[in-house]
Amino acid sequence: MKPTNPARLALNTVTVKERWNLRQAIEGCARHGLRGLAVWREDVNALGLAETKKLLDEHRLAVPALIRGGPFPAIDAAARKAAIDDALRGIDEAVAIGAQSLLLVVGGLPAGSRDLAGARAMVRDAIAAMLPHARAAGMKLALEPLHPMFCADKSVITSLEQANDLCDELEGDSSANLGVVIDAYQTWWDPMLEREILRAGRHGRLLGLHLDDWHLAPAHMSLDRGMMGDGVINLPVIRGWMDEAGFTGFHEVELFSANTWWKRDPDEVIEICKQRYATVC
Amino acid sequence: MKPTNPARLALNTVTVKERWNLRQAIEGCARHGLRGLAVWREDVNALGLAETKKLLDEHRLAVPALIRGGPFPAIDAAARKAAIDDALRGIDEAVAIGAQSLLLVVGGLPAGSRDLAGARAMVRDAIAAMLPHARAAGMKLALEPLHPMFCADKSVITSLEQANDLCDELEGDSSANLGVVIDAYQTWWDPMLEREILRAGRHGRLLGLHLDDWHLAPAHMSLDRGMMGDGVINLPVIRGWMDEAGFTGFHEVELFSANTWWKRDPDEVIEICKQRYATVC
Repeated sequence: MKPTNPARLALNTVTVKERWNLRQAIEGCARHGLRGLAVWREDVNALGLAETKKLLDEHRLAVPALIRGGPFPAIDAAARKAAIDDALRGIDEAVAIGAQSLLLVVGGLPAGSRDLAGARAMVRDAIAAMLPHARAAGMKLALEPLHPMFCADKSVITSLEQANDLCDELEGDSSANLGVVIDAYQTWWDPMLEREILRAGRHGRLLGLHLDDWHLAPAHMSLDRGMMGDGVINLPVIRGWMDEAGFTGFHEVELFSANTWWKRDPDEVIEICKQRYATVC
Repeated sequence: MKPTNPARLALNTVTVKERWNLRQAIEGCARHGLRGLAVWREDVNALGLAETKKLLDEHRLAVPALIRGGPFPAIDAAARKAAIDDALRGIDEAVAIGAQSLLLVVGGLPAGSRDLAGARAMVRDAIAAMLPHARAAGMKLALEPLHPMFCADKSVITSLEQANDLCDELEGDSSANLGVVIDAYQTWWDPMLEREILRAGRHGRLLGLHLDDWHLAPAHMSLDRGMMGDGVINLPVIRGWMDEAGFTGFHEVELFSANTWWKRDPDEVIEICKQRYATVC
């Protein structure tokens, strides 16, 4: 099988983070014919906003998402405000490099807290506080529900239904600046996934699809994500729901994989991404 | 703090499995004033059904659940029938020892399969096939939704909503022989947990509550469960929802804890259970 250069396949730089810096990732993606690259704020700020934008334009790469805003929950009000201020700077950085969205990973429980409902309220309040600036800047905020196993330490938003409910609450039917990203690894187990993808589609709030896989017995909760096809997720089914829901954006490969994919030559990794992607789409 | 002997606290033998056999667990629970003990079929069959019943009666211990029926999904029909037949024997064993329910842990994807919807249909069909015998035997089947991180290998039922939906489908409003068990570790993250506990209560299908805790950063997905109070779950809140929903059964401590609680003297473990339980109830 000789895969073509797929127009909708994007890489997330985390997939190649051990071997390539941002400049190398931009040049590498372009060399392999990819058209999308999701990037992280620390890398963008290290390279510089202007230089990042210049390189992305030179290599005709779109940025589906700048990562990230959050975490938002914190015990004291000053820390919550600092988190919001940092995310507002993230909006400006996303605008500066021409990203399509700022990804929000909302955060888990504050240190020492067992107040899950309270943490969820802090997340809602933080996003509400960001929306005016997102609207003024014309930037979309992309809410990513994480797997429930990350509820304590990474994201109190654990299902797409919950993310959709939050979008309804904060934007109602407008959905101009707040949307959702679906990550297969994070959401594949959800019995309501199809229903909630179609619901998000009806509101025009589908901002991304991450293609990765769940190993039958993961060696680590967060650092053993599988390459498409190496796990148990029926990716064509989820991709099909996204199609049906009207999603036309990038399909992004984001692999946190300390002992497997991070160890390999990024050129090989991207070639394998393209081959596997051809089996999904 | 000197805890009383709580009338509704039950132990699950798995909590002391490395040090005590079933006979020792029965005698130990009685010695510590507990009134409930959840037991496993392999232990019961090793000791003998009649001897198990005799010892339980002598020590006036109730059995909230015999564990377990399942896993049910399998590629070939003969294996699916064998799993149902085994679970039907589990019903008879539950009757023989006077257990209040047979716990169902429904199973993950069949080996090599990515068909999650198909596996869920197999679970539905297996439980439907068991219900006539459960009714004839007067035994309740207790469906336990597991954490979504176990979807691939242990349980394709991953939320209480899904379990409630399945109960509605198979028994409608009667709810005489199919119910649900809520385990804090498995369900604490669920934004719909309160709603679904109240829903289960309205149908009279709440059959158990497992009290355990989620460490902020679990060292292992399945073998690092926390003792009440050692993690981030607000157990009094969940226990309160159960009370509000009309649940009057046992509060069971089921710790899978290879490196902590399984290593300790079971007499100490039970004393600590009683102390911690006093902070929850």
